[in-house]
Amino acid sequence: MRLVFEPVGEVRSSVSPRRAAQWGEVVSELHFRDAVAEGLQGIEQFSHLLVLFFMHEAGYLPGRDLLRRPGERQDMPCVGIFAQRASTRPNCLGVSVVRLLWRRGTVLSVQGLDAIDGSPVLDVKPYFTAFDRASQPTEPDWVGRLMRGYF
Amino acid sequence: MRLVFEPVGEVRSSVSPRRAAQWGEVVSELHFRDAVAEGLQGIEQFSHLLVLFFMHEAGYLPGRDLLRRPGERQDMPCVGIFAQRASTRPNCLGVSVVRLLWRRGTVLSVQGLDAIDGSPVLDVKPYFTAFDRASQPTEPDWVGRLMRGYF
Repeated sequence: MRLVFEPVGEVRSSVSPRRAAQWGEVVSELHFRDAVAEGLQGIEQFSHLLVLFFMHEAGYLPGRDLLRRPGERQDMPCVGIFAQRASTRPNCLGVSVVRLLWRRGTVLSVQGLDAIDGSPVLDVKPYFTAFDRASQPTEPDWVGRLMRGYF
Repeated sequence: MRLVFEPVGEVRSSVSPRRAAQWGEVVSELHFRDAVAEGLQGIEQFSHLLVLFFMHEAGYLPGRDLLRRPGERQDMPCVGIFAQRASTRPNCLGVSVVRLLWRRGTVLSVQGLDAIDGSPVLDVKPYFTAFDRASQPTEPDWVGRLMRGYF
């Protein structure tokens, strides 16, 4: 089965594939297609959004990527791609919680989006506290060590 | 631009389109394709996951869906589709935080997934507290009233 999607917009960011980033500080823009402009009405009432985007520069090779060490780091365990957030995954889809800074027409300014310049945006959803916030989440120790490097 | 994706699995749930649900209580299963089985290794170390799925029974008609009242309720404001979580949206993609109950081979049992039976799964990611938890999120009043009905 193949599913076909059409982007609703695009990421504009100073971050390109060749520049690593402390993503939490990155401010980028989402430029929406005029055809979906009305869909942004009222979005300014939310402080945070979920952004779904296609990681267009990431490739996925099952033999290389299904099992790997996060960040290629020897101090990380070898775990499955669904147990980590690497971009080299089936379908190369990203989901990120961002802070909404402002909206001007079909442009949103957001902070904390870990998407490089040119990434196609597939959807944006408002962050609903009751729905999106896990209650007492637990994770293995390596996650905290890894995230100190990236966020 | 058109992007093509292939599901990595499918939702098995007792919830079908004709049955409304208190989603927070719903327990469902994610059945993964054998080809991506290795990618699940280590996922049991996380208490929560993000599930990306295609809402295959939802349709999207711009004239009807770009601006609407959440839940078709008269006590809700008319807001854009990107300022609400309705399934009738461009690309009909869902993202949900779920609790992982258990894994048996290529099957995950999860709680809190608001996807109906048969929904194609495009990706599963581990919930990273530092990354997925918004800091001091704010949302308009209508969200709390709406969520009391669904979650």
